[in-house]
Amino acid sequence: MSIITFIGAGQMASALSFPATENGHEVRLVGTPLDRDIIDSAELTGFHPTLKRQLPHEGMTYYQIDDVELALDGTNAVLCGVSSFGVDWFAEQILPLIPDTVPLLSVTKGMIDQEDGTMITYPDYFASKLPAGKKLSINAIGGPCTSYELADKDHSTVAFCGIDMEILKRFKKIFATDYYHISLSRDVVGVECAVALKNAYALGVSLAIGLALGPNGDGKEHYNSQAALFGQSIKEMKHLLKLVNGGEENIIYGAGDLYVTIFGGRTRKIGTLLGRGFTFEEAMAELEGVTLESIVIATRTAHWVRRLAERNMVKLADFPLLMHVDAIINHGVPVAIPWSTFETEKY
Amino acid sequence: MSIITFIGAGQMASALSFPATENGHEVRLVGTPLDRDIIDSAELTGFHPTLKRQLPHEGMTYYQIDDVELALDGTNAVLCGVSSFGVDWFAEQILPLIPDTVPLLSVTKGMIDQEDGTMITYPDYFASKLPAGKKLSINAIGGPCTSYELADKDHSTVAFCGIDMEILKRFKKIFATDYYHISLSRDVVGVECAVALKNAYALGVSLAIGLALGPNGDGKEHYNSQAALFGQSIKEMKHLLKLVNGGEENIIYGAGDLYVTIFGGRTRKIGTLLGRGFTFEEAMAELEGVTLESIVIATRTAHWVRRLAERNMVKLADFPLLMHVDAIINHGVPVAIPWSTFETEKY
Repeated sequence: MSIITFIGAGQMASALSFPATENGHEVRLVGTPLDRDIIDSAELTGFHPTLKRQLPHEGMTYYQIDDVELALDGTNAVLCGVSSFGVDWFAEQILPLIPDTVPLLSVTKGMIDQEDGTMITYPDYFASKLPAGKKLSINAIGGPCTSYELADKDHSTVAFCGIDMEILKRFKKIFATDYYHISLSRDVVGVECAVALKNAYALGVSLAIGLALGPNGDGKEHYNSQAALFGQSIKEMKHLLKLVNGGEENIIYGAGDLYVTIFGGRTRKIGTLLGRGFTFEEAMAELEGVTLESIVIATRTAHWVRRLAERNMVKLADFPLLMHVDAIINHGVPVAIPWSTFETEKY
Repeated sequence: MSIITFIGAGQMASALSFPATENGHEVRLVGTPLDRDIIDSAELTGFHPTLKRQLPHEGMTYYQIDDVELALDGTNAVLCGVSSFGVDWFAEQILPLIPDTVPLLSVTKGMIDQEDGTMITYPDYFASKLPAGKKLSINAIGGPCTSYELADKDHSTVAFCGIDMEILKRFKKIFATDYYHISLSRDVVGVECAVALKNAYALGVSLAIGLALGPNGDGKEHYNSQAALFGQSIKEMKHLLKLVNGGEENIIYGAGDLYVTIFGGRTRKIGTLLGRGFTFEEAMAELEGVTLESIVIATRTAHWVRRLAERNMVKLADFPLLMHVDAIINHGVPVAIPWSTFETEKY
């Protein structure tokens, strides 16, 4: 029996309360300043308004952010549940409060491109933001898992990554159930890069859905073109994985996560709208109020690849799909899949 | 302007008549002994009864198998359009008729396991069946392309593979259009292995669809579990590619082809029925009259892997999904995805 403090009451963190409480642990769910309504609702009725599910009846206590220190008092582990838009808040406000002996597990997916042209993982980013002298075990979750299905106890496979295998095993013991299947990996950059990239490429594959549906959205969905872009995505993701020195085998997390992202949610929506011929501004207007990490990650990754190309470390021609996605979302270019650039000759 | 003789009037070969005639070539479409009705219909009305499309109006001539020698007379290239169930017929009846100077391109996907425990590609199999002293350039098509969508001129990416790049370039010139995008590769075993394996694994991934739909088929489709099996499939396919000495990068064809196979057609159907709880016999009965190459290929690949394991060249534990698919279809085992065997620890 452990106490785990979840910081951030978004959909994914909240969904993880199911396996944790099922294993007999106590979950303290703390909302960020943006989660006040969620915490109010959960406390009153147990209902999570964006996850659209009743949270577990047993083992849950709820805290507004004002009580975060109370929620951290005596805790055995912390789960960081913020989206990539919340990482700086988390780094500044929460990291200093976590005792050195309490390990952290983060659900935030993505990587950050730095001034010097490198990309780093969120665990590395968090580590760089720790107050001087502070040490913390910072771990992360990658892999194909949407929050709704996890809350519904559908089978999901994920990877917990971090540098200390013993701590990863402790986290696995807390969360593993007969529907939540956890691999462990010390290759943090490999896992995190694979699952970060899928956001950009899920948008790329979804363009084919929109192209098939056509301007009025009444066309028939086709799969050859989606499969073509899926294959091209795998090729470019493998290449990018190599550039960050991530193990090539992590492409299995990237491929699985790409698959699930194409079939669920917001990235598919924006890619489909763009493929149907909406401008980026029109497409974003249709999704008003929705935060789109895929846009941020595609932009960051393209920026990083351009920097590498300036230094002759890569050829932009090796990333035609990523470059086209970037051109669409950041430079107002209309969708025109560069099919012929995907063709190769292997001697 | 070339003359290309298509032997076999199945869906994929017939769909390829669109790009070929569009490029101004003459297609002679020859039915196998099983294709008599197709040729009768096409000749009379231009309608292809299983492709369910009007074939091109220009550039087509139709032949029953009795006139195959006439159809081969003066031809510049031959397309083998038989399914894997027709390869022995093709090898015995047709290969001896093709002049040595006329190159062959085969649409048949799959590999064959041999007595000595190795697996070979169809081009190698055809080469082994050539009459003594006969030489023929034998090439093949791999990649994610369903016939209906090719006939509808949806964008598709494929790989033509063979040992002579100049001949591959000639074939590319014949078939390339602004919707049919062709890569070329001399890694025949890599391309063919990747696209053969997807059959077995598409059945594996489809089990998750059936499990979510449930016994009555009225459940809701889930994607986390499909993505989990998709990732596991990529892992096992990469491993198998290595075993046949195929280039690891061919996984992009395998992944794309796996994607399109899950979303189109018969393999998805049988996997879904099995996942819903039908026995293999019941599922096959539902698909009466449908030839299922995925069953053949899953069985062959599992057989091959077992032979390798007997010689301590692989561990069966590295292929838990393939072994489970084999157990379901060949040994009457009920579906019970071995989730925990997918979990790994990477130090």
